[in-house]
Amino acid sequence: MSTKQPPTPTPTATATAPVVTFSKYSKRVILKTILGRGDGGVGLVGDRVVIGGWVKTSKEVTKKPVPPPVVEGSKDVTCVEIIPTRLPFFRSIMKVFVGSHEPVREKLDSVVQKLPPPPPPLQQSSLFAVLQVSDGSCAASLQVLVDSSIERPSQVMPTGTCILAEGFLQQPEEPGKHAVELKVAKLLHVGTVDQDKYPLSKKRLPLDMLRDFSHFRPRTTTVASVARIRNGLTQATHTFFMTNGFLYVQVPIITTADCEGFSEKFHVSTLLGEKIKQEVITTDDTAGISSETVKASIKEKNKQIEVLQRSDSNKEALAAALQDLQITSELVALMEAKEAAKQKFESKASVKPVLVDFSEDFFSRQTYLTVSGRLHLESYARALGNVYSFGPRFQAQKSESKRNVAEMWMVEVEMAFSQLEDAINCAHDLLKSVSQWALDNCSEDLKFLSKRVDQTIEDRLKKMTSSSFRRISYEAAVEVLKQVKDKKFEATIELGAPLTEEHESYLADEIYKMPVIIDSYPKELKPFYVRLNDDGETVAAFDMIVPKVGKLIRASQNEERLSFLTTRIMELGLPKEQYEWYLDLRRHGTVIHSGFSLAFDLLVAYATGLIDVRDVIPFPRSHGKANN
Amino acid sequence: MSTKQPPTPTPTATATAPVVTFSKYSKRVILKTILGRGDGGVGLVGDRVVIGGWVKTSKEVTKKPVPPPVVEGSKDVTCVEIIPTRLPFFRSIMKVFVGSHEPVREKLDSVVQKLPPPPPPLQQSSLFAVLQVSDGSCAASLQVLVDSSIERPSQVMPTGTCILAEGFLQQPEEPGKHAVELKVAKLLHVGTVDQDKYPLSKKRLPLDMLRDFSHFRPRTTTVASVARIRNGLTQATHTFFMTNGFLYVQVPIITTADCEGFSEKFHVSTLLGEKIKQEVITTDDTAGISSETVKASIKEKNKQIEVLQRSDSNKEALAAALQDLQITSELVALMEAKEAAKQKFESKASVKPVLVDFSEDFFSRQTYLTVSGRLHLESYARALGNVYSFGPRFQAQKSESKRNVAEMWMVEVEMAFSQLEDAINCAHDLLKSVSQWALDNCSEDLKFLSKRVDQTIEDRLKKMTSSSFRRISYEAAVEVLKQVKDKKFEATIELGAPLTEEHESYLADEIYKMPVIIDSYPKELKPFYVRLNDDGETVAAFDMIVPKVGKLIRASQNEERLSFLTTRIMELGLPKEQYEWYLDLRRHGTVIHSGFSLAFDLLVAYATGLIDVRDVIPFPRSHGKANN
Repeated sequence: MSTKQPPTPTPTATATAPVVTFSKYSKRVILKTILGRGDGGVGLVGDRVVIGGWVKTSKEVTKKPVPPPVVEGSKDVTCVEIIPTRLPFFRSIMKVFVGSHEPVREKLDSVVQKLPPPPPPLQQSSLFAVLQVSDGSCAASLQVLVDSSIERPSQVMPTGTCILAEGFLQQPEEPGKHAVELKVAKLLHVGTVDQDKYPLSKKRLPLDMLRDFSHFRPRTTTVASVARIRNGLTQATHTFFMTNGFLYVQVPIITTADCEGFSEKFHVSTLLGEKIKQEVITTDDTAGISSETVKASIKEKNKQIEVLQRSDSNKEALAAALQDLQITSELVALMEAKEAAKQKFESKASVKPVLVDFSEDFFSRQTYLTVSGRLHLESYARALGNVYSFGPRFQAQKSESKRNVAEMWMVEVEMAFSQLEDAINCAHDLLKSVSQWALDNCSEDLKFLSKRVDQTIEDRLKKMTSSSFRRISYEAAVEVLKQVKDKKFEATIELGAPLTEEHESYLADEIYKMPVIIDSYPKELKPFYVRLNDDGETVAAFDMIVPKVGKLIRASQNEERLSFLTTRIMELGLPKEQYEWYLDLRRHGTVIHSGFSLAFDLLVAYATGLIDVRDVIPFPRSHGKANN
Repeated sequence: MSTKQPPTPTPTATATAPVVTFSKYSKRVILKTILGRGDGGVGLVGDRVVIGGWVKTSKEVTKKPVPPPVVEGSKDVTCVEIIPTRLPFFRSIMKVFVGSHEPVREKLDSVVQKLPPPPPPLQQSSLFAVLQVSDGSCAASLQVLVDSSIERPSQVMPTGTCILAEGFLQQPEEPGKHAVELKVAKLLHVGTVDQDKYPLSKKRLPLDMLRDFSHFRPRTTTVASVARIRNGLTQATHTFFMTNGFLYVQVPIITTADCEGFSEKFHVSTLLGEKIKQEVITTDDTAGISSETVKASIKEKNKQIEVLQRSDSNKEALAAALQDLQITSELVALMEAKEAAKQKFESKASVKPVLVDFSEDFFSRQTYLTVSGRLHLESYARALGNVYSFGPRFQAQKSESKRNVAEMWMVEVEMAFSQLEDAINCAHDLLKSVSQWALDNCSEDLKFLSKRVDQTIEDRLKKMTSSSFRRISYEAAVEVLKQVKDKKFEATIELGAPLTEEHESYLADEIYKMPVIIDSYPKELKPFYVRLNDDGETVAAFDMIVPKVGKLIRASQNEERLSFLTTRIMELGLPKEQYEWYLDLRRHGTVIHSGFSLAFDLLVAYATGLIDVRDVIPFPRSHGKANN
């Protein structure tokens, strides 16, 4: 343990009264409290600090010897100049003069204790590891100097090495981009890195490759900035709702209803850990029909579904078609099983479909991961007024997409006594508020990402804080898109058909170049619970499409009239018994109400410029991909 | 539309400048802004308001006729007394005098517009529905008077009826518990109730019966108060971490690791929606052994597990035993299947175990609902320092309990460069902070619940804000419990055995009567990732047990040393390949770190006095119970 250059305390700061604040729950100074100061930390020069973090980059530097500097003691003894290397001699001299005069000896001892340890004997030159260390509290790194006499450079230099170090803040010899640097006096901890195996050793791994190492990703400056902005947007979201008197409701993740008529859902079960009992199929009502005939009809049905699946808006029609397909498929499976059983009755390799008995499952029925919390939220809105939730929602979509993965966080809002216009106003205000928050509180990270990822992010956020939204009806949107000549869309645009991601993006990115609100959708393109307009054809719903990331918000005034809601459920052939509790809310004390859901991950993508949600979700889950 | 008693505006408030603020996203006044004022709303008497809410209780009242009151106009015309019923006459007289003199007529018209509509002709007496209406914004209700000429009392009186009503605030004729009441001038909406079918029609349904109607529960004053306190504690939690520089990280719900060695977990799968292919079992390595022999061994193993299951602390030993049991059970199943197949080879009713092929599942592997987010949180702590998460966690425990259900919300914290003591300090500070927040911001609801549910809740919260915690070692706790003579515990207390819920509660409720921190557990009683103390026997972990609700917090310094962690995984026979990413965090840039998890639902139970978590969770999920 040694220091080549004992620190020169500034007049205002002594080693015993550091200006820096140590973290409350760990004995170190958070780097933001040094680097986030207006002066970049210069005012703290001379302070003793302990810092901890991970090495981002490093280099080796050889320094010429410097003469031992002069150190001031505490104020009590400023009249005496003490040169640390001469300390033993000085002490013995003092002993002769002072003898056993206690007060003087005590004072002397206290001075000596406050002094930094004596430097090692002068060398010709010395080897330093110069590290850029980050602790994740801010985008900036602290320059840290580790003398080779304290630790071999090869031990501390690899990217990803963790250090906990004690030392003094000083001004760098050569003024550059660092206002202060840390001269390490003592290494309290080194967490080494196996360079050959550490995936982040290579410089600037592309984002898609980083996804394979989601447990290490936050150590990159980019993903760390995203994490801080994500945190900022979360805080801003809660603050907005707190301020406006909304109550936070934790809606369930495990649900019994196939919430929106989707068939792409996850089952939650304990049966898969146990044996699944096979119930041998004995039905005989397909006698006389060949499975080939039924298969042909399935082919036709599949074609229809393909058309519907081009957009996820058309949930109900899709749900109905999928249900139909499922019944037919089951029939084929039954018939094939019978045919197979006939052919291979004696064979051990026979494959038979299995019917699962859900009455034996944990909840004695089928349960799913929730697709949306809005239906449950309604129950609370119909008692407490304005409520919101913020949590993970799930879709088992197998298609690869930058904007949709299996597990996404949603902000959901439900307001009693509110109409669609109120939902639009609330969604507007929320977006304005969180965008302003990010601009105010995450400026350093936004600047870094502007430089590294996308120069337009600050502009985009500023636009969001103003009222620059374009509003058009679905019909008008179709008309506008039909006029487009310079672009060939994959799916044809026609009235009544859903708008695809491509259509929507073209409106926001190319035509209006700002967030676009599309309303007055035909009822067939929206879920069963959306309120029917007086025209009997369109519904009280809107989608907000924003540049770069697409559909950020889906909003609707939900149907409060029992008869209308029941009719829609019947029309779509949804299992009414699953929605009895939801219908109950209309039977007793019903009220008009509206709400929306915001895809939080897309908001983070919008604010950071990383437009693939898998890069802004800590541990993304998508088809075939769940690494940890 | 008519009013019997036009309002008497107060000198300070005119109908055109109401003091009340209308809600931002619905055209009504939130009741809290009236009833939550220091004066109980008296200062708003005379204001025109629109309010919305649900009827809690009601009665019918017959009132004697009152003479039409005198109404002041706006300040401009205070010299003129206008009696509304004489208005037509007054207007015609004025016309004669004023003629076509525009300014005067305009002024007169504006006065007339500000006047309430004229009352109906005097009746002998009038019938009123007197409703207590709540909109969920506060515990108090507003008294609302609806004249039978506006709406039949039977339409608006049933409990649960929703009304949106316009009217004037007035002081009740008979001073009682209400400072103001609303005299309805117009009913904008009535959501009726089918009294025979509405479950909350009966007065004061007990909490356990209410659970069957979780979608209606928040309309009861008790559950509404709980919802507001739950919201307050959520706000307080986020505020605490924001203030202390923690970053919020959304950890995944779908995980691949059987996180803590539990075997009681939920599978997430898309296979159950499809056919599950049966792979016929052809293994023959059990030849010669009877299934009866193996069954006997299972009985023995089950006994062992029963002992271990008495507490959930002993996760690893339990996990190992359960794994062992599972293998043996599978063997029996195989053997039985074979035996059955032999006997009923020709029978269609034969039952065979099915092996599920998870490579065909959505993620091409087995996935589960997360039991704890702490392991994933570590990845972010090892890059960003202090982090927390707040979300739902899952356990497929079949045992009925007031303190554990399948889906619970947890606050999880992970701090780099921190030791167990830091985790204790942070957990302390968090509890103090959120308790103080509840006392400061939820006093009305706490008072209501004190009266209705548990008189000690405010005291308990105050205790939490002070440092009244008792700290003892596991060994000392066992010693103390062994001395207990006046109570017979179901499970015997002995060194090395887990403490049961009953033991823990006895320490907090009966012996110390305050929160108890138990530390220095033997390693066998804690998960594999907890750091081994230098004695090689105990681990750096503590549990905090609080009166009434039990184990509120589990904390630990987690093992940062690769070799120790690997050894523990091997010792317990856990599937090492599932933890490679977690071990990676030790291979590259490891650091000491500690953290804890707080059972948020138990915190709500503690603060509200409703000690069954199913009563404080909006839509509880427990074995066999998932209603919506």
